[in-house]
Amino acid sequence: MNPIDRLAEAFERFPGIGPRQAGRFVQYLLRQNQSYRSTLADSIKKLSAETAQCNKCFRWFVKSDAKRDFCDICGDARRDASLLFVVEKDADIENVEKSGYRGLYFVLSGTIPLASEEPQKFIRLEKLLVRANHRNHRGDASMKLQEIILGLSATAEGDHTRLILQEKLKNAGPKISSLGRGLSTGSELEYADPDTIASAFDSRN
Amino acid sequence: MNPIDRLAEAFERFPGIGPRQAGRFVQYLLRQNQSYRSTLADSIKKLSAETAQCNKCFRWFVKSDAKRDFCDICGDARRDASLLFVVEKDADIENVEKSGYRGLYFVLSGTIPLASEEPQKFIRLEKLLVRANHRNHRGDASMKLQEIILGLSATAEGDHTRLILQEKLKNAGPKISSLGRGLSTGSELEYADPDTIASAFDSRN
Amino acid sequence: MNPIDRLAEAFERFPGIGPRQAGRFVQYLLRQNQSYRSTLADSIKKLSAETAQCNKCFRWFVKSDAKRDFCDICGDARRDASLLFVVEKDADIENVEKSGYRGLYFVLSGTIPLASEEPQKFIRLEKLLVRANHRNHRGDASMKLQEIILGLSATAEGDHTRLILQEKLKNAGPKISSLGRGLSTGSELEYADPDTIASAFDSRN
Amino acid sequence: MNPIDRLAEAFERFPGIGPRQAGRFVQYLLRQNQSYRSTLADSIKKLSAETAQCNKCFRWFVKSDAKRDFCDICGDARRDASLLFVVEKDADIENVEKSGYRGLYFVLSGTIPLASEEPQKFIRLEKLLVRANHRNHRGDASMKLQEIILGLSATAEGDHTRLILQEKLKNAGPKISSLGRGLSTGSELEYADPDTIASAFDSRN
Repeated sequence: MNPIDRLAEAFERFPGIGPRQAGRFVQYLLRQNQSYRSTLADSIKKLSAETAQCNKCFRWFVKSDAKRDFCDICGDARRDASLLFVVEKDADIENVEKSGYRGLYFVLSGTIPLASEEPQKFIRLEKLLVRANHRNHRGDASMKLQEIILGLSATAEGDHTRLILQEKLKNAGPKISSLGRGLSTGSELEYADPDTIASAFDSRN
Repeated sequence: MNPIDRLAEAFERFPGIGPRQAGRFVQYLLRQNQSYRSTLADSIKKLSAETAQCNKCFRWFVKSDAKRDFCDICGDARRDASLLFVVEKDADIENVEKSGYRGLYFVLSGTIPLASEEPQKFIRLEKLLVRANHRNHRGDASMKLQEIILGLSATAEGDHTRLILQEKLKNAGPKISSLGRGLSTGSELEYADPDTIASAFDSRN
Repeated sequence: MNPIDRLAEAFERFPGIGPRQAGRFVQYLLRQNQSYRSTLADSIKKLSAETAQCNKCFRWFVKSDAKRDFCDICGDARRDASLLFVVEKDADIENVEKSGYRGLYFVLSGTIPLASEEPQKFIRLEKLLVRANHRNHRGDASMKLQEIILGLSATAEGDHTRLILQEKLKNAGPKISSLGRGLSTGSELEYADPDTIASAFDSRN
Repeated sequence: MNPIDRLAEAFERFPGIGPRQAGRFVQYLLRQNQSYRSTLADSIKKLSAETAQCNKCFRWFVKSDAKRDFCDICGDARRDASLLFVVEKDADIENVEKSGYRGLYFVLSGTIPLASEEPQKFIRLEKLLVRANHRNHRGDASMKLQEIILGLSATAEGDHTRLILQEKLKNAGPKISSLGRGLSTGSELEYADPDTIASAFDSRN
């Protein structure tokens, strides 16, 4: 395949990008000068050298000169180590941080498909169990873990994953909780689904 | 104005209808036969004769032969009269019913605009206060009222209205509660706003 | 069925209206006062008395006191009677008028479904043939008819209808033409379909 | 700036990509293995080595081993050299090819902003004038040039650019034509704008 089509095909694998937009990306790059393209190519290449995956929460973080195994959050002694917020992906963490949460995180990297027989193939299940079961021997904060909050999407697959995790974690030390359901900002009663209304009613305050 | 434009203008006042669709409604009616139009016109006219507004919850209901002042729900002795669910409009009730709620209702008929000085101009405030303050002398179920649930939209105007109602009702007998906020069905953490996540975290279970 | 549901069902038959919005229409009407509803009902009823279908172009028009068989346009001697613009529905005429066209019109009232065996069941075919074949004995302008412009939508069904009309009309006196295809305002070459580009190329000027 | 943000920022410059999706691209790349990232980086870098801009139509093309100055189309002696189709960007050419056009092309690379004083800053104007004025001394097909088709978008900026080009080219040898306006595939008369209808009427056939 020729280099233009090959590059377009690579961009097509990017999340949410179709053939037409992939083609437009290539055209855009062709119009840029070579130095711009080199810079882009280099920053893609350098990702491996300059980033690392946190050994505790498994999110990606930028390596400082002083090589570390932990990301800023996991390495921050002031965070509340009694709380572990389980999220689907790195991007969720930004949002949860904005909400004022100050505990620790764990990135599942995905959800479990409804049909799936082998959860561990889709999410970081073993690592989560180790963490939950206090068998983490880095002698770190996780020893103080009191509660695991399952921060999964309120979707069919998210619920499916939540139920499996609740089952797998039920004998672990920490309390297992799930995010409350209810009216999310902007929603109107007329359009809310009955489940959401029922949850909003149960968690009324 | 000519009858075609006059009718189009009337339809334009319908919720969510713009000039173009209003015109299409008129064209549609012109294409129907006269008997269809008469039937439609009659059912519009007969609304007043065949429907009534409930004296207790103020929703609209269909009058049965036995003339009643109350709608089915307010007239149903098996409903839990200790709970009063305050909604913005009749349409909300259908959804709340689907959620399994079995208490009573009160229709505010609207929300209070952010700027507004005179809430009572926009919602059925006085009637709600009477109901909340047990001064309802029809000697009915409302005497047993224990809790008022403010079922307002999770919007700026809904919150504004909720805050005003909480203030106005704070000295009334019943406990005043609001629907819980959280992830509504279908929402993903990555796109949820921080307030929603904070509420979902607070109401975790 | 109760009057509220019955009215909602009637509104559901309106073009582009689903159950939810139909219900909202009824709620809207319930909130209005009786005089408003009566006015609306009356203008719907009066449609038959106050409007008529033009005997020549078959569009709907408002009857003036002086009872007429023709609409303003068909009755206007200054219009160019050598041109007949065939449109699908009344609403199209407004748009064509804005384009500066000053000939006459004929409303087909619909298009012919792709599968259909009997065109005449879907459009005003016979009447159009009469008009095209100069057999219109009202001794009117149509005697001067020189060209029939088929103003059909550029859709599969529109094309299907156009082809059938071209066949049916091929032996009629007037020249039969169709609207030119090309780039319509706002379209970009990158997103235009090949047929449109080919037509735009053929009709380049 | 850290490498993750830097890369996200680079992706934000891609056409149609906002901050959120740019971030998702980076996350996607982080999840891929290093070899995938290297391949992507290399194909971006190699663009310069493996592609070239055609000396005649200025579109980008893939260099074959035999180094050429012209793209496939400009180098194809069977193409009709009497026609020059001026397009805004490379992507337009694919669509025009699908329409069956078999002449030559010229890529303007953009349109002229409405406000702009200096057209040449935004499009390849000088090069087009040279080509139009037969001063192209590569002794090639362009000597036979008879007609220049301005294939610009039917947008305000496209029209603005077309008018300027018509003025600039009016004394050049070849005839200057523009794509015909009319109903584009899928458009309905009711929603078409008056200009489109007027053009469709003028180019009726």
